[in-house]
Amino acid sequence: MNRRSFLRTTALAGTAAAAASTLAAPAVAQGRITWRMVTTWPKNFPGLGVGAQRLADRITAATDGQLTVQVFSAGEMVPALQALDAVIDQSAEMSHGAAYYWQNKSTGLSFFTGVPFGMTSRELAAWVRYMGGQEVWDEIYDQFGLQGFLSGDTGTQCGGWFPNELTGLESIQGLRFRTPGLGGQVWQALGASVTNLAAGEIFAALQSGALDAAEFVGPYNDLALGFHQVRKHYYTSSFTEPGLATELVVDKAKYSALPASIQSVIRDVCQAEYDQVASDFYANDPRALSTLVNEHGVITHRSFPDSILEAAAKAAGDILARIRDGGDALAKKTTESYIAALRTVRTRTEGTDEGFLVARQKYFQI
Amino acid sequence: MNRRSFLRTTALAGTAAAAASTLAAPAVAQGRITWRMVTTWPKNFPGLGVGAQRLADRITAATDGQLTVQVFSAGEMVPALQALDAVIDQSAEMSHGAAYYWQNKSTGLSFFTGVPFGMTSRELAAWVRYMGGQEVWDEIYDQFGLQGFLSGDTGTQCGGWFPNELTGLESIQGLRFRTPGLGGQVWQALGASVTNLAAGEIFAALQSGALDAAEFVGPYNDLALGFHQVRKHYYTSSFTEPGLATELVVDKAKYSALPASIQSVIRDVCQAEYDQVASDFYANDPRALSTLVNEHGVITHRSFPDSILEAAAKAAGDILARIRDGGDALAKKTTESYIAALRTVRTRTEGTDEGFLVARQKYFQI
Repeated sequence: MNRRSFLRTTALAGTAAAAASTLAAPAVAQGRITWRMVTTWPKNFPGLGVGAQRLADRITAATDGQLTVQVFSAGEMVPALQALDAVIDQSAEMSHGAAYYWQNKSTGLSFFTGVPFGMTSRELAAWVRYMGGQEVWDEIYDQFGLQGFLSGDTGTQCGGWFPNELTGLESIQGLRFRTPGLGGQVWQALGASVTNLAAGEIFAALQSGALDAAEFVGPYNDLALGFHQVRKHYYTSSFTEPGLATELVVDKAKYSALPASIQSVIRDVCQAEYDQVASDFYANDPRALSTLVNEHGVITHRSFPDSILEAAAKAAGDILARIRDGGDALAKKTTESYIAALRTVRTRTEGTDEGFLVARQKYFQI
Repeated sequence: MNRRSFLRTTALAGTAAAAASTLAAPAVAQGRITWRMVTTWPKNFPGLGVGAQRLADRITAATDGQLTVQVFSAGEMVPALQALDAVIDQSAEMSHGAAYYWQNKSTGLSFFTGVPFGMTSRELAAWVRYMGGQEVWDEIYDQFGLQGFLSGDTGTQCGGWFPNELTGLESIQGLRFRTPGLGGQVWQALGASVTNLAAGEIFAALQSGALDAAEFVGPYNDLALGFHQVRKHYYTSSFTEPGLATELVVDKAKYSALPASIQSVIRDVCQAEYDQVASDFYANDPRALSTLVNEHGVITHRSFPDSILEAAAKAAGDILARIRDGGDALAKKTTESYIAALRTVRTRTEGTDEGFLVARQKYFQI
């Protein structure tokens, strides 16, 4: 052992010992603090589960193991939808999931994942980082002794798998459609018969006819689940999930007790992963879509019929108003902050980004 | 001094001593390695100069000062366009700028900043991180002993300031237009009389009439430079800069000699900043545009006339083909990798993102 590695080992042991006396019982072994991260994702789930593991590994690497993060996929320590409770009850120090899973704890949390007709991933980051979003999110999670960070985003998702082309609102009356959350509420308001099913149950329900239609994420995940084997019409543009942001949530007291440099690493890595996960989807969704179309004969439709879009936009507005006016003061504050930011930031997306995209699509064939 | 901070100080001194013997002469003081970052940006330049400083500070914070980064704005150590040379000749360890500034060293570098009708910031990240982009970039910079990382992006820029509304190609014949780089070559091919001027010279040239029109970045920067005082017609959607990525370039040998954890921090912080800088522009461009329109009477136009877009798209394709076929093997390889990735990734942007944006703009007014 040379002088440098000796000193480093000694210092780490000292840091860990000091940390152990400060923090509320992290596992300490071989001069390292080990934190447990529970996730809401199946192990190796493309994009999101892989992202949670990579985020953990990046924190471990950037701190040279001073903070080693051990990942528990859905079901390994607790079921997926108990991940946040595991941090609250101190069974784990971190959870990786999506804020809207916890909307029953605080309605405003939906906005930090995505809402129908709401923000894209770029817009959401602008709100959270520069337009007051993080501050209201902090107020919500402070109630639970937690701290949340954006940690990934799928980008705009796809609209789902249908047995036929949709011609208008009449096509979806009574349609048994798997689509969860606020998006599901929009489709329900339009006349669909909405249910939620876990990822692993969707294929069988489509095959048996228990479901007519299903929406999950996008080509990258959907190809893996085989939906193309039982439905051929794929709507490639969702209005229910214009983005889906994931979160890393940490125990705030334990986080605040970490050395400032390790706190910085956690924030930096979460933000890096916000880009990395989106890059993964932007690279791999179109590859998967190409396979679906060229090898499996899937028929794509970019947009739902206008009558559906118009009614859905109205229903989405009603749902946001209901969250705002539902009596939860923080939900009201969150909704108002989100809508004010969306009104501002969309002028850039629509006036600049969209203007370019339309021009490129029309004229630049290469 | 308690035991913990004593051990830490000792260890850092040890690390720095070990590093000093390994690395090629970094400044070492008080147990820290100090690296010099030269930038191509004026001090406190909104979005980009601010981003370079913040990136430096984040590396310093996440390494607890083990690597302290000292920033030199344009002109403080070397002029803006000598920043890369300062790293090559070892006057500095890092530069923060835009790869296309160095296209005279290697033509393919333009693609890592942005090219006319090319990739958006999301698409560029997908190419660099998942579709072979980083690998060809590494091949280019390896020739100079350098390593590049994406470190920021402005998002799609604006089209520029004009004395009148443009009605078609006839409006731009002989127009004296400040627009640099490959975008300038496109406008030149369309009949404009293109010049380049440094940021600080544009306003005076517009005022004196030496220039008819100018394109710079977007509202956030343009408002600060006062162009609205002398031109009223603002095209908000550029086809010449669908994104402008910044880079952090490091001396590869010195970077490779750093402890692996510090290398990780540099990569993580650069990627975090890719998101942070874009968030800054997405939040602050629309605020500035609102000021321009509501307080200064600026008239906005989302798109250039179709005849201009169509001719510009053709000219842009010709320019990319010229880069590919110009005899530089790495430029050919870069162009081919970029075009293949663009063909793939644009199917997602156009089929999913754009579908949503069009629907939201049409139906969701909130």
